[in-house]
Amino acid sequence: MDFIDYTFRPGLRNELTLSFRGIGSSSMFALLKPTFSLPHRPVPAARVQVKRSHNDVFLETTSSELESKWLQVYDSLKWELIHDPSFEFDDHSRQWAERMLDYNVPGGKMNRGVSVVDSYRLLKGDELTDDEFFLSSALGWCAEWLQAHFLVFDDIMDESRIRRGQPCWFRLPEVGMTAVNDGVILRCHIPRILKKHFRSKAYYVDLLELFNEVEFQTASGQMIDLTTTLVGKKDLSKYSLSMHRRIAKYKSAYGSFYISVACALIMFGENLDDHVEAKDVLVEMGIYYQIQIGSDVENFKCSWLVVKALELANEEQKKLLHENYGRKDPANVAKVKELYNTLNLPGVFEDYENKTHEKLIKSIECHPSKAVQAMLKSLLRKIYKRH
Amino acid sequence: MDFIDYTFRPGLRNELTLSFRGIGSSSMFALLKPTFSLPHRPVPAARVQVKRSHNDVFLETTSSELESKWLQVYDSLKWELIHDPSFEFDDHSRQWAERMLDYNVPGGKMNRGVSVVDSYRLLKGDELTDDEFFLSSALGWCAEWLQAHFLVFDDIMDESRIRRGQPCWFRLPEVGMTAVNDGVILRCHIPRILKKHFRSKAYYVDLLELFNEVEFQTASGQMIDLTTTLVGKKDLSKYSLSMHRRIAKYKSAYGSFYISVACALIMFGENLDDHVEAKDVLVEMGIYYQIQIGSDVENFKCSWLVVKALELANEEQKKLLHENYGRKDPANVAKVKELYNTLNLPGVFEDYENKTHEKLIKSIECHPSKAVQAMLKSLLRKIYKRH
Repeated sequence: MDFIDYTFRPGLRNELTLSFRGIGSSSMFALLKPTFSLPHRPVPAARVQVKRSHNDVFLETTSSELESKWLQVYDSLKWELIHDPSFEFDDHSRQWAERMLDYNVPGGKMNRGVSVVDSYRLLKGDELTDDEFFLSSALGWCAEWLQAHFLVFDDIMDESRIRRGQPCWFRLPEVGMTAVNDGVILRCHIPRILKKHFRSKAYYVDLLELFNEVEFQTASGQMIDLTTTLVGKKDLSKYSLSMHRRIAKYKSAYGSFYISVACALIMFGENLDDHVEAKDVLVEMGIYYQIQIGSDVENFKCSWLVVKALELANEEQKKLLHENYGRKDPANVAKVKELYNTLNLPGVFEDYENKTHEKLIKSIECHPSKAVQAMLKSLLRKIYKRH
Repeated sequence: MDFIDYTFRPGLRNELTLSFRGIGSSSMFALLKPTFSLPHRPVPAARVQVKRSHNDVFLETTSSELESKWLQVYDSLKWELIHDPSFEFDDHSRQWAERMLDYNVPGGKMNRGVSVVDSYRLLKGDELTDDEFFLSSALGWCAEWLQAHFLVFDDIMDESRIRRGQPCWFRLPEVGMTAVNDGVILRCHIPRILKKHFRSKAYYVDLLELFNEVEFQTASGQMIDLTTTLVGKKDLSKYSLSMHRRIAKYKSAYGSFYISVACALIMFGENLDDHVEAKDVLVEMGIYYQIQIGSDVENFKCSWLVVKALELANEEQKKLLHENYGRKDPANVAKVKELYNTLNLPGVFEDYENKTHEKLIKSIECHPSKAVQAMLKSLLRKIYKRH
């Protein structure tokens, strides 16, 4: 049993599995002392049951009280959103919004979100006040909201079936294409949260701009991924390592890595223009992370594996790739994967991984601030050698 | 011939029909003198051909030079967006973005956008400087971008076929569900435009918040429309006049009426909190405008006509409504429309229209500022008795 059962108020969803599994040696909340009491509305109906796993590194080093407070921030934000005075909710629309949020926002690994709290703690170098815990968690949840927004849309575009162990939101019969509007609403919630909790802060506008920019970059990365795949269907030779890097950078690195650290830096009073090196490191980490995720043979994606394979293949092997890549039939997929092995891609990847790790550590250690170094290394630990 | 042919640079789209038809006695650019030279990049490849209609009130009172400058602002904004340094465009992605914009943003009546320029001119009470013309047009185009974003999504959700006289964007074979991501990109462009041109203004954050709030309200209105329609499929009696008002208010009034005036007020240095009465008037106009648009019998929408019909119908007529409303078959639709006539809904509507007009004029004339009065009356003229 390696998850936490988090039971929401009855009538909506009986059980929501929050897979607080952590990645590798993730520290998550390890550095935070469990001494917080939230200054905001407690959610009386939320009940948290933590079931610990014996072999889960994260859970063994993590306070269940902190996890519960992190989840209470979600409940608190959700409560505010479904009582937002900018819209006249009735019971029916409020229930729809609440169920949609519970289904789509908190079910992932939540690394993006927790990393904001973790990073802020490392920048501060001391334990957080209640207010700091709440605010950094709220920013973390904004990053999770942004991710949920993109996932709802991605699943529709990729015609996916399963997301986080349950049917994709748009697959539910009562949802269908209403999911498109729900995706819009998820995005709208971010500036609502920021306005509610950060309007009086000097860095308010920086937060608005950060989320706007990262959303633009992610959607633009998605655009090249989608439209290159269209072109690629006709011509695999258009795929290259530089194109793969560009897709991974924009589609995933900003929204999955940069945003967490950027939120923490902004909240700590830093100017993001002074942290271009940290941004470069985070983008590299994002590209590396994306490479680990997989190959997407069936969907004809411009993956690292296929561009590496094209680079290493002889004419006959290239022909095999052209004939089998991008087909849904498991027999075609198997042929591609066999070729990957023949070309020793696992070994090539391991080599790439070691070199990347070394390069990243070197870049990080050049940074003048020990706190920023600690923050970047903490993130790197979460993703290195996770396969 | 009652439209303007607007030829874009070759190779993208040969002809784009901009239906500058105006509504009723719209003044559009009538009050602006054609003495502007844009301070921003002219677009050398854009060619504007104006074909005037003899019976088009708007075109007869409008300067083609101003229309051309309004369209040049679009071209200028588009140029900046597809060269945005926050993303590494290549030729392919740049062409995709440009074509997507040309297809979705400028093809409508553009009342929302032009109203910002018009309203700002009426507030100022004098002709605009080049800079003011450019900035108010840029805000107008942001309102058009927001509308385009929602239309791309609405067409997917409603499974529509035609929008503005051409196939819906997602219906193009090379587009398909990529349209979902394009809808996201359209929304992302708004803060990009605002950052580029308004970052140094004291009211920058007010603009960001305005667009964020209106998007939230529109999507929330869409949510009740979509989910009420689901419930309604089972039970027509859940439809009421107050529910119809709520849907029209949130789904359409803020994004179609309030936003234009709010942009002009913000740019004029006003605080929106001081203009709650104007907001109320604009929301009423938006509800009235939505009622004019039509009945949506086939899609089982909670329209004004059906709730009025339910209010006036006897038991037998109600039964007929329950049996025929929400069916795609033209025979069912015809029966519903026949009942509307039997119940004298056209007469009831005319009566409602006259009373609404009288009420709105009275509310407008209570406003202390003559400039705000002129602005609101100008908008009302555009929509009154347009059927």
